[in-house]
Amino acid sequence: MTIALGFQDWMKEVQSTMEDALASLLPPASQDPARLHEAMRYAALDGGKRVRPLLVFAAGELFDADPAVLARAGAAVEMIHAYSLVHDDMPCMDDDALRRGKPTVHVKYDEATALLVGDALQSQAFIVLSEGAVDDAARRLDMLRLLARASGSVGMCGGQAIDLASVGLPLSLVELENMHRLKTGALLHASVLLGALAGKRVTHEETESLEAYSAAIGLAFQVVDDVLDATADSATLGKTAGKDAADNKPTYVSILGLEESRALAERLRNDAHRALIPFGDKARRLRELADLIVQRKA
Amino acid sequence: MTIALGFQDWMKEVQSTMEDALASLLPPASQDPARLHEAMRYAALDGGKRVRPLLVFAAGELFDADPAVLARAGAAVEMIHAYSLVHDDMPCMDDDALRRGKPTVHVKYDEATALLVGDALQSQAFIVLSEGAVDDAARRLDMLRLLARASGSVGMCGGQAIDLASVGLPLSLVELENMHRLKTGALLHASVLLGALAGKRVTHEETESLEAYSAAIGLAFQVVDDVLDATADSATLGKTAGKDAADNKPTYVSILGLEESRALAERLRNDAHRALIPFGDKARRLRELADLIVQRKA
Repeated sequence: MTIALGFQDWMKEVQSTMEDALASLLPPASQDPARLHEAMRYAALDGGKRVRPLLVFAAGELFDADPAVLARAGAAVEMIHAYSLVHDDMPCMDDDALRRGKPTVHVKYDEATALLVGDALQSQAFIVLSEGAVDDAARRLDMLRLLARASGSVGMCGGQAIDLASVGLPLSLVELENMHRLKTGALLHASVLLGALAGKRVTHEETESLEAYSAAIGLAFQVVDDVLDATADSATLGKTAGKDAADNKPTYVSILGLEESRALAERLRNDAHRALIPFGDKARRLRELADLIVQRKA
Repeated sequence: MTIALGFQDWMKEVQSTMEDALASLLPPASQDPARLHEAMRYAALDGGKRVRPLLVFAAGELFDADPAVLARAGAAVEMIHAYSLVHDDMPCMDDDALRRGKPTVHVKYDEATALLVGDALQSQAFIVLSEGAVDDAARRLDMLRLLARASGSVGMCGGQAIDLASVGLPLSLVELENMHRLKTGALLHASVLLGALAGKRVTHEETESLEAYSAAIGLAFQVVDDVLDATADSATLGKTAGKDAADNKPTYVSILGLEESRALAERLRNDAHRALIPFGDKARRLRELADLIVQRKA
């Protein structure tokens, strides 16, 4: 990635690279079982802002990581993210019919296929990382371990479980934060660390700075999500708006109100910028992504 | 494992070792999110014959693998197997209420929890392998890659997808074989190879012999499953008997008939024994497991 590119052009370049990487790292739709592979591609290709891969690439710039390694790591994270959306949309979870402006997988195919698509996308993420990424086997293992932990019961899945258990309950701000730290924060955090690890073994101090950055943008991401869910329409979001309130889910907006939520997002953006100071100019893309996460409209 | 133990005692020792390994490699039920962790343990502990871990340990004896490494590899495979059962039992798949003589996870808990339990057990398998197993990072990566491939869309998940698509269709024997080669065969095959890899880097010739063995017992396992489903009662099986016929699923019994299916299982047992000849006495447990798979009553 050329540092000289403007942010919008840089994003488009990463998004296009990621589309190619995902297309080549998912089994072809012609390969048996064809319907499963077609549905896996439907779930993962041609959609989303690719926030997690953008974080992988942005963090990779800190240590001049190989773009091919970043693309592979980004694809692995995005497969985990895509699987979680497919399962999250199923009738026994959020029961959502629209995702990224398209019918969800269980609507387009069927529930059993959606279940298997999610399961197989999770495996595929670990296939992709174990088959390639960095040459150094020990570092590749570090990346695998990081992604597995971020996906599992003390990461994303655990956050989903807390989310499920909290519907209709009066959560405190601390409990809400803990839920989101796992549900979305764990994978955003893993994205940043994967990008850094793609470049080199990361020192303790560097890890701490990146964790502070990730914690801030992870929380900001969710606060802004709640603000958008309460204020934007479905067409803009590409998914059903106002669903959290309809489902009686606790949100930042329901606890803090709209204005205080927006102010919190701003404070978190400043925290994220501050955490990047040790990295100087190399952290430009990570700074720009923090801005994007807070300022996005969908 | 002492080679002097009788087969029944050896099995009991491995099963007991595996129960301890799973109990310590799954997050404790007291850890948050507690309900998810309790349900993961419910799904994976105290049940099953542990056929896959038995294969891991039996293959490990070929090359004198460290029992602690075998226990970790066995736990990882068993977590993948347990997750597949949880998802397979869900209403959108086989809709089964009984498993290993206990209520299935979605019956005991709820569907959303069952979905997350399966997802998190899959992650946990990769956490467990990436955190430990053999010291040699390259070999540990080989083990991870093997397990991920066996689990994914060209392994177990792919077999499930073909199974789904084939309900009510007149499958040929070749199509039925292909389905089972993926659905159950891939993970049995991975178990054997993981056990071998736990001991050393495996040569091409050794891999070929182990693949011939795995292919034979994998198929035999399914043929016997079909025979038992058609002839045993639910109490003996610990799951609902006669389900395949009721669901109009193609089986070896429906295609070949009962007697020819039994004869096929015997031929496959002989194939398995023949594949083990190069390993001599070291393959004793693998031979005994082939016998067990064909002669089991449940």
